[in-house]
Amino acid sequence: MATYRDAGVDLDAADALVARITPAVTETWHEGVVGGFGGFAAGISVPPGYSDPVLMMSTDGVGTKATVARAADLLDGLGWDLVAMCIDDLAAAGARPIAMTDYLAVGTLDVDRAERLVRSVAAACAAAGVALLGGETAEHPGVMAPGEFDLAGAALGVVERGREVDGTGIVAGDLIIGIDSPNVRSNGFSLIRSAVLGAHPLTAPLPGLALPAAETLLAPSVLYAPLVTRLLDEVPVKGMAHITGGGLPGNVARILTGCDAVIDSGAWDVPAVFEAIATVGGIERTEMFRTFNMGIGFVVVVSPGREDDALGALSGGDRVTTVIGEITPGTGVVHISGEGRAG
Amino acid sequence: MATYRDAGVDLDAADALVARITPAVTETWHEGVVGGFGGFAAGISVPPGYSDPVLMMSTDGVGTKATVARAADLLDGLGWDLVAMCIDDLAAAGARPIAMTDYLAVGTLDVDRAERLVRSVAAACAAAGVALLGGETAEHPGVMAPGEFDLAGAALGVVERGREVDGTGIVAGDLIIGIDSPNVRSNGFSLIRSAVLGAHPLTAPLPGLALPAAETLLAPSVLYAPLVTRLLDEVPVKGMAHITGGGLPGNVARILTGCDAVIDSGAWDVPAVFEAIATVGGIERTEMFRTFNMGIGFVVVVSPGREDDALGALSGGDRVTTVIGEITPGTGVVHISGEGRAG
Repeated sequence: MATYRDAGVDLDAADALVARITPAVTETWHEGVVGGFGGFAAGISVPPGYSDPVLMMSTDGVGTKATVARAADLLDGLGWDLVAMCIDDLAAAGARPIAMTDYLAVGTLDVDRAERLVRSVAAACAAAGVALLGGETAEHPGVMAPGEFDLAGAALGVVERGREVDGTGIVAGDLIIGIDSPNVRSNGFSLIRSAVLGAHPLTAPLPGLALPAAETLLAPSVLYAPLVTRLLDEVPVKGMAHITGGGLPGNVARILTGCDAVIDSGAWDVPAVFEAIATVGGIERTEMFRTFNMGIGFVVVVSPGREDDALGALSGGDRVTTVIGEITPGTGVVHISGEGRAG
Repeated sequence: MATYRDAGVDLDAADALVARITPAVTETWHEGVVGGFGGFAAGISVPPGYSDPVLMMSTDGVGTKATVARAADLLDGLGWDLVAMCIDDLAAAGARPIAMTDYLAVGTLDVDRAERLVRSVAAACAAAGVALLGGETAEHPGVMAPGEFDLAGAALGVVERGREVDGTGIVAGDLIIGIDSPNVRSNGFSLIRSAVLGAHPLTAPLPGLALPAAETLLAPSVLYAPLVTRLLDEVPVKGMAHITGGGLPGNVARILTGCDAVIDSGAWDVPAVFEAIATVGGIERTEMFRTFNMGIGFVVVVSPGREDDALGALSGGDRVTTVIGEITPGTGVVHISGEGRAG
């Protein structure tokens, strides 16, 4: 007789996974969380201090960084990538992230690997003060290869009505502040896989770098949201961009209406990992800027005269922040200038 | 020189997709929605009438029903499946769903297919009064086969504090009401694929059924949440269960503490599709009940004497509702009795 287990779906393994991850997940549940683990849904209060809260949602995944992480068996950064991808989009809209769900699709359920992934998501949620309210582990036997997996998620944030940030009001003369990203975050891995890792082993360092390529490429994403939430409490901000697929040109353009952005790529040090990717992969500078963050993972636009307040509010932690450009009259185009490195 | 496009990721196609789906997505944006399409995140107000709202999140996917839908090129029901899987979990916890995000992972982006899928999600959201606030289409070249895709999502709901429903207070003597599901919803497709569709063509009707197997198996899921939201406004409910993977035994058990549930499978007509799956697939009755909803997609537990109020509140639409069992003293076990069909 046919059974669900014969078909490749192991509900007992799924139950075992839930038992193993429960402590890590519930550790993200601060006093605002309502409901028990194993119910149909858990809840969270709107944090105090909002008189007219607007709820925002975002969703994203780690992309094929998962495939590289699997090949290297370095899974513990992927949760940070997932949480960063989701909550930093909320932060860019002015919202404070408060909760997340994760979605893990696997070919067949490897309980140890799934536990590491969910623990990693929970650790990043805890670091960001975000409650991991729920998750789904879906087995797709015969559709995904047995060891293959995909990690995605969704985040919930809250912003006081009227304090949403969407770039409205950005005008010529405003200044563009960049917050550094020391690594590639979770975009561009399909290009890295095809152009770089086809020829370069994961165990060997990339040119100019000390660690094995796997460790360099899989370094976990910075979580910008906690820093940005603090900034928004202190300084008026006109627009923000989370630099994901499309790079600085694609993402800064999303907040421009009736003006251009001129970014001086000489204003910051492009991390060596990007030079190495370009060299090994044979990738042109323009394509690099369109695909990768190139060392700037988050952008904040402020009025002239506000830059020192903003830089001050962003200081004190590990992040390097710099004025990297300005807004000019135009039609929504992002120009990357500086040292002839991109156009 | 290597480019992101060469690596199998086509950002222009992604832009084309966004342009095509924008009208359908924004049609789900009622007056409570804040923010424009293309920003980093869109938002929604807490609906009026909540003095102390608790926000709930759920996440799920359509599983390998997607694979069957792709083989049959019948994609337009999958959005209903996704929305049902997500929002009916919220409803089971007592929350009114208000917003969703969707996540579509593809091998390579087929803009036509992706448009059909997102339109289907948007149509189901519109029918449920849920705003589709965001979405992600992720290309995973080389990881998923070119035509393969996975559809997942997350939903946000709201419930007044103290009105969450989690089965607390269920006692022996309470009655179990079942709401019919005329089809398999979005669970058990790995078993259907291996046990049924290995031998049976999608184009031929299953035994006892008129339509081709593809249409029978891919019938879209009922959305219970709107009906349940209305019920909760009218009748006190002690516990609810959304019948997904694990079937009636697995899901009704989630709301039982210190009592059992005795369900009489003779109390409703098991739809012919389940008899056909059991026959063609050679699947035992017990395994059928542990894997499929068997014709009951949602369960509501009420105090004795409240059943007529609940059945009345659930009436007037297309759904068939019946008392299917009762709560007895016990330890959290669900017994399926009746006609010797399961034990």
